[in-house]
Amino acid sequence: MNFIEGGVCAAKGFKASGIHVGVKTHADWKKDVALIVSETPCAAAGVFTRNVVKAAPIHIDLAHLKNGVARAIIANSGNANACAPHGEEYAERMCAAAAKVIGCAADDVLVSSTGVIGQTINIDAIEGGVQNLYDALASTVEASDAAAHAIMTTDTVKKEAAVGTIIDGKAVHVGGIAKGSGMIHPNMGTMLCFITTDCAISSDMIRAALLETAEISFNRISVDGDTSTNDSCMVLANGLAGNAEITERGPAYAAFLEALQALCVKLARDMASDGEGAKHLITCTVRGAKSVKSAETISKSVISSTLMKAAIFGADANWGRALCAMGYSGETFNPEKVNVAFASAAGEIDVCANGRGLNFDEDKAKTILTEHDIEIRIAMGEGDASCTCWGCDITYDYIKINGDYRT
Amino acid sequence: MNFIEGGVCAAKGFKASGIHVGVKTHADWKKDVALIVSETPCAAAGVFTRNVVKAAPIHIDLAHLKNGVARAIIANSGNANACAPHGEEYAERMCAAAAKVIGCAADDVLVSSTGVIGQTINIDAIEGGVQNLYDALASTVEASDAAAHAIMTTDTVKKEAAVGTIIDGKAVHVGGIAKGSGMIHPNMGTMLCFITTDCAISSDMIRAALLETAEISFNRISVDGDTSTNDSCMVLANGLAGNAEITERGPAYAAFLEALQALCVKLARDMASDGEGAKHLITCTVRGAKSVKSAETISKSVISSTLMKAAIFGADANWGRALCAMGYSGETFNPEKVNVAFASAAGEIDVCANGRGLNFDEDKAKTILTEHDIEIRIAMGEGDASCTCWGCDITYDYIKINGDYRT
Repeated sequence: MNFIEGGVCAAKGFKASGIHVGVKTHADWKKDVALIVSETPCAAAGVFTRNVVKAAPIHIDLAHLKNGVARAIIANSGNANACAPHGEEYAERMCAAAAKVIGCAADDVLVSSTGVIGQTINIDAIEGGVQNLYDALASTVEASDAAAHAIMTTDTVKKEAAVGTIIDGKAVHVGGIAKGSGMIHPNMGTMLCFITTDCAISSDMIRAALLETAEISFNRISVDGDTSTNDSCMVLANGLAGNAEITERGPAYAAFLEALQALCVKLARDMASDGEGAKHLITCTVRGAKSVKSAETISKSVISSTLMKAAIFGADANWGRALCAMGYSGETFNPEKVNVAFASAAGEIDVCANGRGLNFDEDKAKTILTEHDIEIRIAMGEGDASCTCWGCDITYDYIKINGDYRT
Repeated sequence: MNFIEGGVCAAKGFKASGIHVGVKTHADWKKDVALIVSETPCAAAGVFTRNVVKAAPIHIDLAHLKNGVARAIIANSGNANACAPHGEEYAERMCAAAAKVIGCAADDVLVSSTGVIGQTINIDAIEGGVQNLYDALASTVEASDAAAHAIMTTDTVKKEAAVGTIIDGKAVHVGGIAKGSGMIHPNMGTMLCFITTDCAISSDMIRAALLETAEISFNRISVDGDTSTNDSCMVLANGLAGNAEITERGPAYAAFLEALQALCVKLARDMASDGEGAKHLITCTVRGAKSVKSAETISKSVISSTLMKAAIFGADANWGRALCAMGYSGETFNPEKVNVAFASAAGEIDVCANGRGLNFDEDKAKTILTEHDIEIRIAMGEGDASCTCWGCDITYDYIKINGDYRT
């Protein structure tokens, strides 16, 4: 298994495009609609936000995914189509418009939106631009890049990756694009992510693989503790790799899962690293926990702590905030067994042993915490389970971006 | 019942003081130790953080409160005495030092600390200064003021209040000082608060009243979602008002509870309003909910949302973030019945009806949201229960304060 080029166009039989049609009204005319199409029908699955308030496209997708088959995904940025007038009607019209130019049924198209909540989406701009969107489709590195850019909101870099592996003697590819940045907290997808693969796999098994993957990737990141109304992760598998269709767990499923998980962990980390205003990627690894679930809860609590995030922003080795966040995570443990260290490319430093502060070299700690990628290493002394979660620091820019997002 | 002057010295038979002894080493020599003493033994109770990681003084207080009797509280700012070497030993020594100058048993003294986690507290400075602290005791407005200042960390204003009421024909006084600012989230006390009263009330009933009060005051505020290791709220009742001792629920208990709750709601609001770096007090009132618990959960989720807080900082009427936070609160409800309005001294504006955005006057909304005290009014359409919680916005200053707190 290895990382390759091509994003959502890495897998055979997929085309993508991304253009500006007018949903975003900023003067800089950024791309605002993306289209991903498979030559042939795909086994399809999705996981969506657990927020009680769900954006309109999610209701449409849940209906369109009932038969486990789809061929295309249309997605816009600039408007979330959540809590907005005509929400479901316009989400359906996005699917219908795409279906018409592709030449497929409307319920074989999935739809996603991201952007501001509560405003009517400019459906005329999307319907008016869909032919141009279709005409721009290509199965190239550039086409995936365009689609990745078209779903960005406050993201500063595109999120795109692809993985190649061998299953059943055949070359299988899995690729994805994603957007993240704000309103991100582990509770399902926590963002938009669209994945394509040429692996032959049944609807049931692609769904199982997606659920298993979301749990250990997107559900282990947090930017700001806010679970969005629009979080969606969808996968299309068209089977063109020619492997024997995966219909049950076994070595082939395991190989596919490994590729899918590698892809999604990379995209999830990239999302955390590019959290709104972030200057640091924070990785929190909890070892020696009594269970993976316990390690995950504790690690998530640490990366979600506003105070911990502010300390990392300030390159301040304030490990007490990590211990505090562990303590209110809901997990029980003995604080007097906890060790904490900070690490980065600049080295590692122990700051807490058996729940008590160590006299450590503050200058060395500062040097370590000045790096972009910071790791908080926690040893619980309770068992042998471990888990890693990812977050980012909170900065002046986060406040600036979110203090006046709508205007 | 009415608000009066005097803070913790408003009740008969209480003296207080606050001085600098050297726990804080900043150049500005702020006060760092407070003492509150009753002439006579008191019925006493406390509620403490639910964080698994508890500061050393809390373990000592739990032991000293077992018999429901106490006479004094000694508290320092500048060091949390949490996860620090010799924690419990030094907390005991603080009690013993105070007991020696007062002339009471060490287990009749309660102790609190607030400040940085994980560093050894300067016990020598406290022991060396305790005679001066005792000599400064007085039952004056100025003495309570000094104690209120001595427990401040990043607070910008002192928190102090007192209430007078009539119980059993006698004038009864309840007063308190508190500190808040950071690491504040509803899960018990969420701060330090010391309350004195001359009401005659049994240990059991003062404890019941404190629990009932914490639930609807301190547990309904949030500054940053971080539940501290040190949260403590303690009350001393010396009975010098001369009312018949309250030993059960009834009109006298109800009158005392009313006074205690009025005091604590005021102190809680003051804490939210003075949250670290805050420019706005945010009050979120949820009406028409199916239960008070449901209204409380939803209201807390809204005031705790980092994105909602950033929007208020930017005076941006981004009500979608309120709906989003309601949706991930864990409560179930029908989003299509939800109405949202923003209000302040400058007026009120409806922004969402039946879960959909309204076309509202953005200029008017901006004017309303520019005031210091902002209210988010939510109508659920599910029942007739309501609840109000308090929070604050998140600002550049919050990041600045917490990016480099230790140095």
